[in-house]
Amino acid sequence: MIQITIIQIDNYGPWTVTPNPRRESDLQALQSRLYSDLNLQFGAHKGLVFYTRFDNLMAITNGIDTETHKRIQDSIKNRYPFTVSMASGVAETPYEAQKIATAKIQNKGSAQDKYRTEILDIEELDNSIENTVTLAHVDINDITGTLTDLENAYDTYVSVNEVHLALIKELKKYNAMGFFIGGDNFMAPCNGMTEEDFLEMFENIKNSTGIDLKAGIGIGKTAEDASNMADIGLELIRDKKTATQVYTLNYEEYAVGNIVNQRTLGVNMDCK
Amino acid sequence: MIQITIIQIDNYGPWTVTPNPRRESDLQALQSRLYSDLNLQFGAHKGLVFYTRFDNLMAITNGIDTETHKRIQDSIKNRYPFTVSMASGVAETPYEAQKIATAKIQNKGSAQDKYRTEILDIEELDNSIENTVTLAHVDINDITGTLTDLENAYDTYVSVNEVHLALIKELKKYNAMGFFIGGDNFMAPCNGMTEEDFLEMFENIKNSTGIDLKAGIGIGKTAEDASNMADIGLELIRDKKTATQVYTLNYEEYAVGNIVNQRTLGVNMDCK
Amino acid sequence: MIQITIIQIDNYGPWTVTPNPRRESDLQALQSRLYSDLNLQFGAHKGLVFYTRFDNLMAITNGIDTETHKRIQDSIKNRYPFTVSMASGVAETPYEAQKIATAKIQNKGSAQDKYRTEILDIEELDNSIENTVTLAHVDINDITGTLTDLENAYDTYVSVNEVHLALIKELKKYNAMGFFIGGDNFMAPCNGMTEEDFLEMFENIKNSTGIDLKAGIGIGKTAEDASNMADIGLELIRDKKTATQVYTLNYEEYAVGNIVNQRTLGVNMDCK
Amino acid sequence: MIQITIIQIDNYGPWTVTPNPRRESDLQALQSRLYSDLNLQFGAHKGLVFYTRFDNLMAITNGIDTETHKRIQDSIKNRYPFTVSMASGVAETPYEAQKIATAKIQNKGSAQDKYRTEILDIEELDNSIENTVTLAHVDINDITGTLTDLENAYDTYVSVNEVHLALIKELKKYNAMGFFIGGDNFMAPCNGMTEEDFLEMFENIKNSTGIDLKAGIGIGKTAEDASNMADIGLELIRDKKTATQVYTLNYEEYAVGNIVNQRTLGVNMDCK
Repeated sequence: MIQITIIQIDNYGPWTVTPNPRRESDLQALQSRLYSDLNLQFGAHKGLVFYTRFDNLMAITNGIDTETHKRIQDSIKNRYPFTVSMASGVAETPYEAQKIATAKIQNKGSAQDKYRTEILDIEELDNSIENTVTLAHVDINDITGTLTDLENAYDTYVSVNEVHLALIKELKKYNAMGFFIGGDNFMAPCNGMTEEDFLEMFENIKNSTGIDLKAGIGIGKTAEDASNMADIGLELIRDKKTATQVYTLNYEEYAVGNIVNQRTLGVNMDCK
Repeated sequence: MIQITIIQIDNYGPWTVTPNPRRESDLQALQSRLYSDLNLQFGAHKGLVFYTRFDNLMAITNGIDTETHKRIQDSIKNRYPFTVSMASGVAETPYEAQKIATAKIQNKGSAQDKYRTEILDIEELDNSIENTVTLAHVDINDITGTLTDLENAYDTYVSVNEVHLALIKELKKYNAMGFFIGGDNFMAPCNGMTEEDFLEMFENIKNSTGIDLKAGIGIGKTAEDASNMADIGLELIRDKKTATQVYTLNYEEYAVGNIVNQRTLGVNMDCK
Repeated sequence: MIQITIIQIDNYGPWTVTPNPRRESDLQALQSRLYSDLNLQFGAHKGLVFYTRFDNLMAITNGIDTETHKRIQDSIKNRYPFTVSMASGVAETPYEAQKIATAKIQNKGSAQDKYRTEILDIEELDNSIENTVTLAHVDINDITGTLTDLENAYDTYVSVNEVHLALIKELKKYNAMGFFIGGDNFMAPCNGMTEEDFLEMFENIKNSTGIDLKAGIGIGKTAEDASNMADIGLELIRDKKTATQVYTLNYEEYAVGNIVNQRTLGVNMDCK
Repeated sequence: MIQITIIQIDNYGPWTVTPNPRRESDLQALQSRLYSDLNLQFGAHKGLVFYTRFDNLMAITNGIDTETHKRIQDSIKNRYPFTVSMASGVAETPYEAQKIATAKIQNKGSAQDKYRTEILDIEELDNSIENTVTLAHVDINDITGTLTDLENAYDTYVSVNEVHLALIKELKKYNAMGFFIGGDNFMAPCNGMTEEDFLEMFENIKNSTGIDLKAGIGIGKTAEDASNMADIGLELIRDKKTATQVYTLNYEEYAVGNIVNQRTLGVNMDCK
């Protein structure tokens, strides 16, 4: 089971043009700082936030309780010119979880209702063994050699966005989700998906865009544990230490087999 | 003529995994803070930055000289664990300008060359009358009523990304560019495009995605002046004060006709 | 028992002038951002950080374990152009605790030893009943009416600094510590001090500087709980609901007597 | 002539306790971020800001006009939960300049008047030759060897604050001002003071505190130019290339005599 939190700035659209449109560079600075802060604050509890649409963000929040959400919500109010609403859902798949979370916020009123502020409706997961996050770190094969150093910046950007759209639509078919995390990197909460699903999906994307993808998949109790495993899996693929372009690591097993793995795979686990 | 600056983090990819993959929430916080800072620092000189791929950013920098670029480059080195390279190009169209800028950086070495650091190659525009920025602020008609309050967050996000990709590809046909700026908003540096081009482009996007767009187009000496005009144009469309879904305002004429415009259009220009 | 953590930027002095002195506005931006981030990150775990000398900071960290310190230390390395060392001490009084913490860092090498990086030596407190933080929030009586609105800004600043120095020296006599937190406000970790000690200390400071002080004193399991209690105590004094200029609230008792207290004192506890 | 700007958060005190006291770690994060941002934004125009009391800050703003102040004021409103007022004064000495600036703000109402917001009253200096900033960078001789690595952190902090208070009071005698900038460093806007004044002042402070100080003094058209010169002067003293513990460099002459100076003094001026 995965826990997904929706974070929505309350009545943000109207604020940006009241009493007159606000300077765009300020709004970009403000929105990206909010995203930065939310990653530090959820990150302090091993969560991970995606910017999504900047005024509507999504976070993986397994292991993060209502009080912690409330404390982050207060902190935003204490430091920003607006407030945020938050709701979480838990489900077998990420897509289902966000659907539950969205419904909770929508039921309380419109995103542009000025009287609907600071909704907080957090469904928590308990600590039982099946409540893990499955998270894939996807990237493009050799983007530096094939795009960044070769094509102009806008064309590379268009290519990355083609992959992005193809990926987020493909992932939805599996009730998973995908988010851009910079460069040529994507993160996909994907509880329920198998390595075969990824290989098939990458085949489809290759066919439609001509671009090759690979993925480290991590499993862990929190977004951070899963993300760390996904990163190491991706490094193993980059170093050609895996049979296919998809490789899965489970934090629990990895921790147990740590010393053996280090010797075998040449990966140093002390980093995090 | 428009001046576009490419900003590239030097050798960033390798750094993120050295000696081991760094925590993802930290990287997201770091990248979005860089984007925030660049908007404050270029914004201090009426520029505007788009996050593009976070490790490769683009800015509209009409009116911003080499020394100012150098000072921002120094400031990043002084406060971040990495350095950035910057190059600008000037051309009749945004797409051509970024192409020139990209070539300058690529000619100095790979984005992942550890000895290629802090490239600075800025072509400046003089202050002559034809050197203006044309910038469109595009948004989706009533996204709150049709998507945000109705669909689940992920589906809305997919829809916005469908529009995004269609838009950035269509704009390229006109040698223009497009960037997501949060919510349902896009900004398009579009020197050389006409209102008719926009109406035709929106028709195409409507046909392929089913989604209606509108655009305020601003013209000004700097990104900020143009952006302010675009914002006001968009407000006029929202208030149904225009004949079509595209409306252009020129900063120079607007300033001259300020009082008349305020009376006629009910817009207060004192804000910025 | 109180737990105090010393945070020291590794080899910072030499870095600020290598290869040449760095721009001062950048250094101020960098240092204050570090302070800001540490407050968000320790604050996420109910700690509280004081800027002290900006390159050497102190935090109250009751309830914050080694792993959390390590995660914050990593996060600084991941986002800043330097690393930090951290050590904590626990003792009956704040002054003794910081002494232990300082010794741990000094024993590992000089602050300007370039090979001594990322020391981490955290002594944790268990959760037993006697391990509470006592924290006073001190301010100047009616500074707005007597100084800010009347004297010039520099003279007010000198006056506040006179009080600051008198206060931090007086507090040391009781093995307590004091820090400026903006405006006319000071925070003093003061385990072991009584209300009488404060009244006597304020009398001395009044005699030497002519300035009247008051203090809310809070007791709680964490810096945040104690701080909240201190704030409420100070509000009660401001509202003339207390007999003297010093008032103590204990989080544990307060929570128990919450409803009664709210009615009696007119304070709303729901805020935090 | 020097231009000093006072920046005051409007009605901040009441906001911090409305409807109830806000979390202290959030307030510290908020205040230090404001200080950080103001240094980036004034720094973008070669100004320099001191935190002073965090809710009342001072900046050296030679060369920064009303429009730029207004743009920074707007940017704060666009990104913070409060607004700021700003006023500047120009005078032969820093102390006189801030006095004029303070009076302008006080005349418009109390710092805690909720209807007095966003005062903007900027007196600008023209670009004539006599309008330079004189700025001293003062530090403690070998603080790492004598205090940081030897004494406990609190005792070092008390010592630095003793020096700080002595310094800011001594400077006032010369109509100069002093501010702590971290570590063992102070910056003193000091138009009108001579090297002899500094030597005499340091003698007094040595007698009262037992601590030795030194100072690089810089003269330039802007705070940044002066600050850079002060930094280089201080480096020359540290490297024992000067006759006394005070050394002055003038940006205009320095630039002219740059190559000679580099050879003579071994300083590389290319850095900034």
